[in-house]
Amino acid sequence: MSHPHTIWINETTGIVEATDQRWLPFRNDIFQIRTLDDAYFAIREMVVRGAPLIGVTAAYGLYVAACNFEEGDFSGYMSEAGEYLKISRPTAVNLAFAVDEALTHVCAEYSPEENAERLLAYAESLKRREIEYSTQIGCNGLELIRGISKKKGGSVVNILTHCNAGRLATIELGTATAPIYLAYEENIPIHVWVDETRPRNQGARLTAFELAEAGIPHTVVPDNVGGHLMQHGMVDLVLVGSDRTTLNGDVANKIGTYLKALAAADNQIPFYVALPSTSIDWEISDGLTGIPIEQRDPREVTHMVGLRKGQIAEVQILSDLSPAANYGFDVTPARLVTGLITERGICQASKEGILSLFPEKNIRT
Amino acid sequence: MSHPHTIWINETTGIVEATDQRWLPFRNDIFQIRTLDDAYFAIREMVVRGAPLIGVTAAYGLYVAACNFEEGDFSGYMSEAGEYLKISRPTAVNLAFAVDEALTHVCAEYSPEENAERLLAYAESLKRREIEYSTQIGCNGLELIRGISKKKGGSVVNILTHCNAGRLATIELGTATAPIYLAYEENIPIHVWVDETRPRNQGARLTAFELAEAGIPHTVVPDNVGGHLMQHGMVDLVLVGSDRTTLNGDVANKIGTYLKALAAADNQIPFYVALPSTSIDWEISDGLTGIPIEQRDPREVTHMVGLRKGQIAEVQILSDLSPAANYGFDVTPARLVTGLITERGICQASKEGILSLFPEKNIRT
Repeated sequence: MSHPHTIWINETTGIVEATDQRWLPFRNDIFQIRTLDDAYFAIREMVVRGAPLIGVTAAYGLYVAACNFEEGDFSGYMSEAGEYLKISRPTAVNLAFAVDEALTHVCAEYSPEENAERLLAYAESLKRREIEYSTQIGCNGLELIRGISKKKGGSVVNILTHCNAGRLATIELGTATAPIYLAYEENIPIHVWVDETRPRNQGARLTAFELAEAGIPHTVVPDNVGGHLMQHGMVDLVLVGSDRTTLNGDVANKIGTYLKALAAADNQIPFYVALPSTSIDWEISDGLTGIPIEQRDPREVTHMVGLRKGQIAEVQILSDLSPAANYGFDVTPARLVTGLITERGICQASKEGILSLFPEKNIRT
Repeated sequence: MSHPHTIWINETTGIVEATDQRWLPFRNDIFQIRTLDDAYFAIREMVVRGAPLIGVTAAYGLYVAACNFEEGDFSGYMSEAGEYLKISRPTAVNLAFAVDEALTHVCAEYSPEENAERLLAYAESLKRREIEYSTQIGCNGLELIRGISKKKGGSVVNILTHCNAGRLATIELGTATAPIYLAYEENIPIHVWVDETRPRNQGARLTAFELAEAGIPHTVVPDNVGGHLMQHGMVDLVLVGSDRTTLNGDVANKIGTYLKALAAADNQIPFYVALPSTSIDWEISDGLTGIPIEQRDPREVTHMVGLRKGQIAEVQILSDLSPAANYGFDVTPARLVTGLITERGICQASKEGILSLFPEKNIRT
């Protein structure tokens, strides 16, 4: 039933559709993106999430906006649409990247219809690019897992991951999970510790769901547990994704990632970040001061959605007398990152490391 | 309505009663401890929790057991009762301490009734001792907060705490919260970041409840957030309790404490542990290898209790297809602990530090 991709064009209706990730694994719905507002809502409310998928969704959102153009200044209309989408979520850099790149395809000489076609072509090409990047990240990261497996004499490789940097954060295969899927296909014995990832539980709800679907051995743990596991030799590798990585190698990722990086460093466990170059912010050098950290509705902390008697139900888990805060991301300083796994290979989390793989970006710096 | 203490003898009925902490803050029940099994259940199922309160509950449990003695070898019966209680929870050392100390008051020359009286007297004296220790810890820790407040020119002192080391973990005042209550009484501007503390949410459910009752400004955050707060200067002091502290200063506390200690060290933020000497294990030197870490029912991870339409309700938050693990505690190595706040004063988290405050223990080592 479910589509192999996370976003697609319905072949019958031509409507942009996406897997609605809000109720997974308990309900597997499809969300239709018919208007710019739908795209904004889908990103803002996390119908879709994950940096690469947010970027692709924004590109489709601009296509949909172009289709709905009525009259007036088309270029101005599209610029406004782009600015609107950009504010839907602040941290993932893929969003701004996709909007800006998409808009370079808008050309005043063409009709709105032709521009819509061009924007669709861009969205599809970005989608293909992200699929390709995931595959390449998978191949590059697989080498790491192979190496650890060999070192351990073939005994189980334990990988800890935080949040969801899987198929559901991308188009297919994922970023942090891509090497895991490939290792599993290659019959390397692996086991994944899945951080629950409060407050929205993307680990427990999405990563665990993906891994269970694929048959990959895994165990969900509260976010508090990783340090203990690392202290006791139960983690061989930490693999996470990134919402925005600065040119100096600082990594913004789901809140709590920094704590796992600290524990990995304290226990001499390799901590790798898997990311396509579309998640690199080439403009910012200091992640801690430069990357905007989203604050979301405290209701995500005070209430919890789950299954009750077969139905989706929500319970309040914090008394009305206590306020809550909900920071979406944190920044792991480059010094705590063992390496970045990109589509072009693995590099050090540093300007030198990143530019060694992406020398064409050197002109900008 | 609620009793000022967490465990007490009902003055009318003579029955041992305790605040049932399982459904707080949504329901405030009283739990009766009429039998040894009730005491075992109360500790095991976390009707009561927190190292000092577990110790006092065990002492009352032995009194109740003595009251229920029917015939045979009283001393053997009491020893068995003690061993039974000891296995109810493995990590808090107060449990074994209270059982062993209580049993030194059992004397074969006295009748079971007289022994029951002696055990009650012991339980009451241990309870008074824990109250006194909390007060002294509060006074000693208050100095720290005063110092930070002065250094900050009177602007708000932000304290982060994990789990519940409050009134509800003790008899009154708490351990980690004791200095907070006293600082608040002294009108020092403070604000407490309360870690939610998955999986059982003792922070969100108990610490937040306590602080709200007392009117102390606080904000609940998911366990993932503390590192980000510390990176951005939003935490001046980390204050936690302890379930067992070894003679060398290693601290077993609620799972996730170690991650906060790492973040505090990485950001040069003082990390203090407040504990009565009844939580010190004088026999173990290496906490990481020596302290047993409880593994609890994965259901605490896979399900979440909260309020729904005014009633306590439970939702399933993890699919049946994914297993979960539930480690109750972790060990923070002494090197990450700025100091221990005890009833006798503040010391370094080291054998030298601890023995400087408790020189009478030197003979044992």
